Amino acid sequence: MNQCFGCNTCKSADKPLETFIKGLPMETSHHRVDTQKTKCGFGLQGVCCRLCANGPCRITPQSPRGICGANADTIVTRNFLRAVAAGSGCYIHIVENTARNLLNTAKSKGELKGIHALDRLCGMFGIQEKDDYARAEMVAEAVLADLYKPEYVKMDLVEKVAYAPRVKRWKELGIMPGGAKSEVFKGVVKCSTNLNSDPVDMLVDCLRLGISTGVYGLTLTNLLNDVLLGEPELRLAPVGLRVIDPEYINIMITGHQHTIFVDLQERLTKPDAVAKAQAAGAKGFKLVGCTCVGQDLQLRGSHYEEVFDGHAGNNYTSEAILATGAIDAVLSEFNCTLPGIEPICDELKIKQICLDSVAKKANAEMMEFDFSKREEQSEAIIDKIVAAYKERRGSVKLNLLPDHGNDNTLTGVSEGSLKKFLGDSWKPLIDLIVSGDIKGIAGVVGCSNLTAGGHDVLTVELTKKLIAKDIIVLTAGCSSGGIENCGLMTPDAAKYAGPKLRAVCEKLGIPPVLNFGPCLAIGRLEIVATEIAEELGVDLPQLPLVLSAAQWLEEQALADGAFGLALGLPLHLGLPPFVTGSKTAVKVLTEDMKELTGGRVIINSDAADSADILEKIILEKRAALNI
Amino acid sequence: MNQCFGCNTCKSADKPLETFIKGLPMETSHHRVDTQKTKCGFGLQGVCCRLCANGPCRITPQSPRGICGANADTIVTRNFLRAVAAGSGCYIHIVENTARNLLNTAKSKGELKGIHALDRLCGMFGIQEKDDYARAEMVAEAVLADLYKPEYVKMDLVEKVAYAPRVKRWKELGIMPGGAKSEVFKGVVKCSTNLNSDPVDMLVDCLRLGISTGVYGLTLTNLLNDVLLGEPELRLAPVGLRVIDPEYINIMITGHQHTIFVDLQERLTKPDAVAKAQAAGAKGFKLVGCTCVGQDLQLRGSHYEEVFDGHAGNNYTSEAILATGAIDAVLSEFNCTLPGIEPICDELKIKQICLDSVAKKANAEMMEFDFSKREEQSEAIIDKIVAAYKERRGSVKLNLLPDHGNDNTLTGVSEGSLKKFLGDSWKPLIDLIVSGDIKGIAGVVGCSNLTAGGHDVLTVELTKKLIAKDIIVLTAGCSSGGIENCGLMTPDAAKYAGPKLRAVCEKLGIPPVLNFGPCLAIGRLEIVATEIAEELGVDLPQLPLVLSAAQWLEEQALADGAFGLALGLPLHLGLPPFVTGSKTAVKVLTEDMKELTGGRVIINSDAADSADILEKIILEKRAALNI
Repeated sequence: MNQCFGCNTCKSADKPLETFIKGLPMETSHHRVDTQKTKCGFGLQGVCCRLCANGPCRITPQSPRGICGANADTIVTRNFLRAVAAGSGCYIHIVENTARNLLNTAKSKGELKGIHALDRLCGMFGIQEKDDYARAEMVAEAVLADLYKPEYVKMDLVEKVAYAPRVKRWKELGIMPGGAKSEVFKGVVKCSTNLNSDPVDMLVDCLRLGISTGVYGLTLTNLLNDVLLGEPELRLAPVGLRVIDPEYINIMITGHQHTIFVDLQERLTKPDAVAKAQAAGAKGFKLVGCTCVGQDLQLRGSHYEEVFDGHAGNNYTSEAILATGAIDAVLSEFNCTLPGIEPICDELKIKQICLDSVAKKANAEMMEFDFSKREEQSEAIIDKIVAAYKERRGSVKLNLLPDHGNDNTLTGVSEGSLKKFLGDSWKPLIDLIVSGDIKGIAGVVGCSNLTAGGHDVLTVELTKKLIAKDIIVLTAGCSSGGIENCGLMTPDAAKYAGPKLRAVCEKLGIPPVLNFGPCLAIGRLEIVATEIAEELGVDLPQLPLVLSAAQWLEEQALADGAFGLALGLPLHLGLPPFVTGSKTAVKVLTEDMKELTGGRVIINSDAADSADILEKIILEKRAALNI
Repeated sequence: MNQCFGCNTCKSADKPLETFIKGLPMETSHHRVDTQKTKCGFGLQGVCCRLCANGPCRITPQSPRGICGANADTIVTRNFLRAVAAGSGCYIHIVENTARNLLNTAKSKGELKGIHALDRLCGMFGIQEKDDYARAEMVAEAVLADLYKPEYVKMDLVEKVAYAPRVKRWKELGIMPGGAKSEVFKGVVKCSTNLNSDPVDMLVDCLRLGISTGVYGLTLTNLLNDVLLGEPELRLAPVGLRVIDPEYINIMITGHQHTIFVDLQERLTKPDAVAKAQAAGAKGFKLVGCTCVGQDLQLRGSHYEEVFDGHAGNNYTSEAILATGAIDAVLSEFNCTLPGIEPICDELKIKQICLDSVAKKANAEMMEFDFSKREEQSEAIIDKIVAAYKERRGSVKLNLLPDHGNDNTLTGVSEGSLKKFLGDSWKPLIDLIVSGDIKGIAGVVGCSNLTAGGHDVLTVELTKKLIAKDIIVLTAGCSSGGIENCGLMTPDAAKYAGPKLRAVCEKLGIPPVLNFGPCLAIGRLEIVATEIAEELGVDLPQLPLVLSAAQWLEEQALADGAFGLALGLPLHLGLPPFVTGSKTAVKVLTEDMKELTGGRVIINSDAADSADILEKIILEKRAALNI
């Protein structure tokens, strides 16, 4: 029964996790890297097209066009635009639901935990109203109104939220987005069969999608979440599989839409709910963080200490978390909920409930979140989970890893809490950059994948190289989960930094890698960068700031990346996004983009080389600023 | 110079065209069938996934799951849902622009050519207003309002347009669509990385997308077009490459959004415009029909006799049309504008202008249609085309095929003109069906592809087999273009019909294949079927009616097909839509669908077998109706 399924797993930067997964009696994604190791060269280069019944067509030197006549440039950029549009759609779906939850909460006079964030949004949007609920409604409605504009009507909030020099450049390029949902719609239509064939036109559209993704899906989602969920506060917290306490009924949460869980979170700590858990033999309920919704809960953990046990791991740790046997239910509402958890849930009798039908798992129960029924839904969920707990505990063997991770990861970092920490001013940070104590800033963001060296391997190695070069790293996304479980976000990780950055960290008592939380928090990094640029009176591309989505995984990451390029930032990727088959796409993304927005894509899968390239860019930017 | 490029072209049902293409000095899609003949088995079965950086993953017996854990069912249905959503998006884009053009025309008191169609729409929508312009505005606004509803708000017009017994069934199945654009958006998000993994849930979504595609993108687009462009009237017209008159400045039009050309069409016949053509040495301007916008113009040809020369051919005839050398410009506004025309246009100095940025061709000039600037745009287009004519004629050799096609294809068939022809009643048709003189009805619809036996080969052969069995064929889409060029829509094609159908055709002076025009006209077939079902007091699945998209090509065809399935009709496809790798998808589409909607998919690439299967279904339906 408990025999190892097979030890041929991929590497992980997280060695204890790697050993744990090797010993598991069931298959995980880490095992399947080997069975899927033969990759299709056409697919990798993006030169396979299956948009029509004449296909699939594949580009080779002997067959440079598909049957319809599409060449590599057209095929690659159609595929790429479709991926970016889908990824943008994911974030726009998230911000739409977040705005709806804020609107409904305000209408029903529910709790608004982040009035400061509401002030900030009202300031940005020019809302003068006094009453908080009225203000919250107006904020939510302004967001929703923009999302539903036609593609040919520009959204109002972009100019109010984004940095003015960027807006100016976007207008010059003609890439100010129309209604965000219609932009996604148009992007998908454009790359359908026998429609657009112009590679540059389609790549420019990716930038437009990047802007709406970034401004709405990232930046505004965070701020709306702050209003409903409370603003992040700095604190040290446990991370890794150690956070799982088998004496509780444990609920693993996955997704990106934290506001869906508000009512349930409150309910889980109410005496009658706890009594239900206790009657079943547990001490109570705990939420175990996984994927970005776990990162977000970790970020705001100071508001949820009673029910939130900590962040256990990222997307590709989720199977291991379940394999401990101590998780009784999975509540999911979006990606990154791997299909690979399904057979494990079946085997370990873990109850799966999906709260958003866009992410219905094949063998899960569907309970579409309905704000007006949130109380009865919470009650039903609790009862179902208690029933699962009773059925499974005792019959399922535990396989815990209580030493995994660490107890003192710095979390709660946001544009707000960091600035507050620095004395309500960016000046101390700017001074450190100017003096060279901090050489520059790298945002190590995005997902975790298994193919750029293994699970978090490139991300963690690159991060180590960057901090050793006195470059401070800010993270957002599943990358955060890997980096924190590997111990780079504890204050004593200062020892891995270069001498100058180490001294800064030790003086301030902070790690050299600051965790902004979920991928949504890429929007927070953008705020930090914008506020620094504003203080310096420069545009974003002038800052000694680079981005790396070293182990990008999903279509969403490509939309994030398009935002980074629209911001004019250098963007490193460990693996190319299926575009190398098009010379035009590669040239536009890696070279011409510098002229368009100031940004560029850098593709490199070697940590040391990548760190050198990023350092060189930072040094060039410093030189141009005369620092 | 004029040497044959290579004779290894695919077969065409249209033998003169096949010979013409074989002799061409340039490469066409017909040549590339051979260079793209090695097909990827994973792609054909739909079991290749490239949604994330871990991929591409491919399902084999040895690797039944992708790295993330997605199995064949999940991968296939994600790919399929994405294609259906994109295809739906294409039609929704078309109806949106059509409604906007109607709205703008009404606001500017432009010409409304089809007041009867407006009456009909107002009747359906419950609009009581008297003034035609006000009524037209209200109709257009009602459509646009529905398109922009959120996914969680049902559209209002579905119940008003669709057949009541179908609406009842759709409600039972929970597949009444929310806002059409948001349904597309949601469909795309759902199949993004690590979101939905439930194959049945995703297939059910395809039905929902099928309904919004059918009701809005097909049925309503036709009716809105009828208001602006005039209703179809029966007439005999020339078809094929013969329609190209080299003494004119010839403009090939491609796309699906006929209302974009309204102003230009009028301008082209004005004396000052004609004078420009004459000053350049031509007799005037002619529009040469190609793809669906050509079919639509042919359908309404009685309103445009002066400027419209006739329909030359379908999507995969477009390269041949250009290769005649007598086309001076291509005006395109949507698919199916093959990328393959681009090098031919370059070589033959043919001016390409795109009027909708969703369909920007790589080497074409972009001039986004703007209703408020339509007059200056028409003027600019005319000047550009005259300039192209002057530059190219004389230097480009003509290679005409004046005998191609025929002069007496019956066109202008619609639900309105056909009923009028029958004496303003469906009773004569119903009587013929009841008596067995007409065994049943087959809608042979959708695209033309090159891989189901060759260009139009399966479509034409199947049509011949069906009419030989006394089954009357109604067509819509690029299939119409192939069938008409092969002569099956002339009155004397009655001789190819079985004895009973032949007698009916000869008595009425009609062909055994009735051409409803563009793929949009699938919505007209649905109206015919609905009106017949209504008169008989039965639901659509009970009718002796089958659909075949024998040579479906595009994602749009899959959305059309989903509409057919939602209507409860048997749907034949010559090639499987990349789903055969999923047992669940195949079972749901070919078997379980019967229980859900009454529809089913039949996949068969042999014309005789397919005709036998479709006849058998018709006989079963007849038996169940006791006729």
